[in-house]
Amino acid sequence: MSRIVQKFGGTSLADVDRIKKVAQRVRLEVDAGNEVAVVVSAMAGVTNQLVDWTRQSSLVHDAREYDVVVSSGEQVTAGLLALALQDLGVDARSWLGWQIPLRTDGAHGKARIEHIDVTGLRNRLARGQVGVVAGFQGIGPRGRITTLGRGGSDTSAVALAAALRADRCDIFTDVDGVYTSDPRIVAKARKLSRITYEEMLEMASQGAKVLETRSVELAMNHRVRVHVRSSFTDAAGTLLVDEDEIVEQQVVSGIAYSRDEAKITVQKVADRPGVAAAIFGPLADNAINVDMIVQSASEDGQTADLTFTVAQMDLDRAVSVLEQSRAELGYAALKPDSNVVKISVIGVGMRSHAGVAKQMFQTLADKGINIQVISTSEIKVSVLIAAEYTELALRALHTAYGLDAAG
Amino acid sequence: MSRIVQKFGGTSLADVDRIKKVAQRVRLEVDAGNEVAVVVSAMAGVTNQLVDWTRQSSLVHDAREYDVVVSSGEQVTAGLLALALQDLGVDARSWLGWQIPLRTDGAHGKARIEHIDVTGLRNRLARGQVGVVAGFQGIGPRGRITTLGRGGSDTSAVALAAALRADRCDIFTDVDGVYTSDPRIVAKARKLSRITYEEMLEMASQGAKVLETRSVELAMNHRVRVHVRSSFTDAAGTLLVDEDEIVEQQVVSGIAYSRDEAKITVQKVADRPGVAAAIFGPLADNAINVDMIVQSASEDGQTADLTFTVAQMDLDRAVSVLEQSRAELGYAALKPDSNVVKISVIGVGMRSHAGVAKQMFQTLADKGINIQVISTSEIKVSVLIAAEYTELALRALHTAYGLDAAG
Repeated sequence: MSRIVQKFGGTSLADVDRIKKVAQRVRLEVDAGNEVAVVVSAMAGVTNQLVDWTRQSSLVHDAREYDVVVSSGEQVTAGLLALALQDLGVDARSWLGWQIPLRTDGAHGKARIEHIDVTGLRNRLARGQVGVVAGFQGIGPRGRITTLGRGGSDTSAVALAAALRADRCDIFTDVDGVYTSDPRIVAKARKLSRITYEEMLEMASQGAKVLETRSVELAMNHRVRVHVRSSFTDAAGTLLVDEDEIVEQQVVSGIAYSRDEAKITVQKVADRPGVAAAIFGPLADNAINVDMIVQSASEDGQTADLTFTVAQMDLDRAVSVLEQSRAELGYAALKPDSNVVKISVIGVGMRSHAGVAKQMFQTLADKGINIQVISTSEIKVSVLIAAEYTELALRALHTAYGLDAAG
Repeated sequence: MSRIVQKFGGTSLADVDRIKKVAQRVRLEVDAGNEVAVVVSAMAGVTNQLVDWTRQSSLVHDAREYDVVVSSGEQVTAGLLALALQDLGVDARSWLGWQIPLRTDGAHGKARIEHIDVTGLRNRLARGQVGVVAGFQGIGPRGRITTLGRGGSDTSAVALAAALRADRCDIFTDVDGVYTSDPRIVAKARKLSRITYEEMLEMASQGAKVLETRSVELAMNHRVRVHVRSSFTDAAGTLLVDEDEIVEQQVVSGIAYSRDEAKITVQKVADRPGVAAAIFGPLADNAINVDMIVQSASEDGQTADLTFTVAQMDLDRAVSVLEQSRAELGYAALKPDSNVVKISVIGVGMRSHAGVAKQMFQTLADKGINIQVISTSEIKVSVLIAAEYTELALRALHTAYGLDAAG
């Protein structure tokens, strides 16, 4: 007997017919004698509709009321899936965030989970009842509904699996696992049967959309055995594991890319102490995250050029913040560029293998691709290049690191 | 300064534009210095959609999960109206049933309100914040969402007004008040500026659909000053009041009708003690309510015919229950007839005026309308007639009791 958490996304729950198929899938685990908690997203499209209504209703964004409205989508699917399970003769009941309770901080719209009291839920599971949990939602310190931000149902599922000490957390999605690269671009991409938490975390934060970054972080911290798999096939997906569970570690496990980047070059700022703080301080004050940074001496030797990246959606705001500080910063010009992509080569094997970065730079150079910014971490090398080279770079790197599928 | 509860139905909240109009209407009361709590229904059509989904999901009707799903509609409008009010600069927040809490019994799908703890809500109102309350929903004894049954938002509003000791409870609807009869049939029907609780209760239970019966009962018991009015015009509607507040009481205040009736005649049952119990017992056991009853001796002197009415929707079930008991009851034949209508003449003035019933029978006789069953109460006379005479009977009675509008 195992205790299992299953999570189904909005595409898998898009209408009543699909909800019934999900119920059948859940029943398989029940029939196998397992304790099952299911975390559900809203029907595909519903959350967007609800978000639209909140925007149309008010120019004021009250995140508390936003949460009241958008959390209703998961409430509907939780009730409907419980009904569909009962229809198959499976004992089931729905649990809303406040009923569990799944307690969060008060950051409405992007709340963080603080504590899940699983006593009631666990008792029901032990009696053989399936718990259908509305994902994405919790209850804040003042007794109001909170939501965990987009993709929050993954986080709900992993956090619940951790709290329940579940043997496995199956994330059912519309892809059938984690690939070495995006199969829509790299035809030779392979599905990974296993990936380490650290790699998955880098993959997620570097643009792979299969799992939400926070949920991977949570899985890593609590060593939750997350299994990413397709809700439409029975094929095995990808298991997130500890490093020592992977016997033959590849040097590089995957190549991610993110189009969600924009570059800003601040030309000819005074090359003196404190200038970086003067630039990045106001950006931080405006909640604009800066990712990659490179500083290079200008030709005149007196000033420096500072290049950095922000999220695409923050570009206009970042430019206007810097323009407001122009007098103070005393730069010559501001060059925004949203026509860039970040390519990341990821693998825990890098720790013990030298030459991974060098191979990346060489491969790109051989294809005539200019590298604009570089950043590295222990298990990742990222480069910023012109967006038009995205496909070329991904395929070349995939081949260079020996990741191509045979045949 | 007054404390006011306003209730808006689904037609008034059918889309974001209408929700914004409702917000403007609420603001008028706030600007006038009043404390305002608003009770909302779901957007028109949404509850039906949610109900359909629950039916499609399962043949099993688990009323607890049904409540989880259908209560989400009011959650959405409560959040959206709070946002729309904020957009107008009005401080507002939403309250779900479990947040107030509005406590009910555990009869999911048709729960009764047991207690409303208005402490939190009242404090907020006193600070000038509008409370937007999701109607139709509460929390049951085991911490699960309950709903109050169809039309339950009226009940929510009146119960909340009672708990808050509100000065007035405005029920905004798609008609502009209570009429002496249905204006779609009786062109000369007049809007009543006042009606007594007792009369309104009879009107509602005899088929007038403007207010849900339970909400009128509650208003009567707690002496809530309910004002029924249109959400689309500013005209004064109809106020529910005590009898002594109406100076010149008409003998008859209104004429209601209900097409939701069906008649069953049980022919030639043995005319012995206990036979009525033998017939109505099994019906009660099957939760079938019997309304009007008449017993008449058969021609043979040994047996009796028993005629009674049930709700249209219960007719088939009632017939099958009685057929199962045929051997035991020993009747000759069962004659169901759904082609009937119940017409009721209502007025507290009847208590002190004789001859109201006689005038009704005479008026119908003059038009050649045969009366099939009669029932009376202190302030009401109801007759069952063939459905085809509905319009003729209503208009003739309206004129006969002097209710026609001048001109």
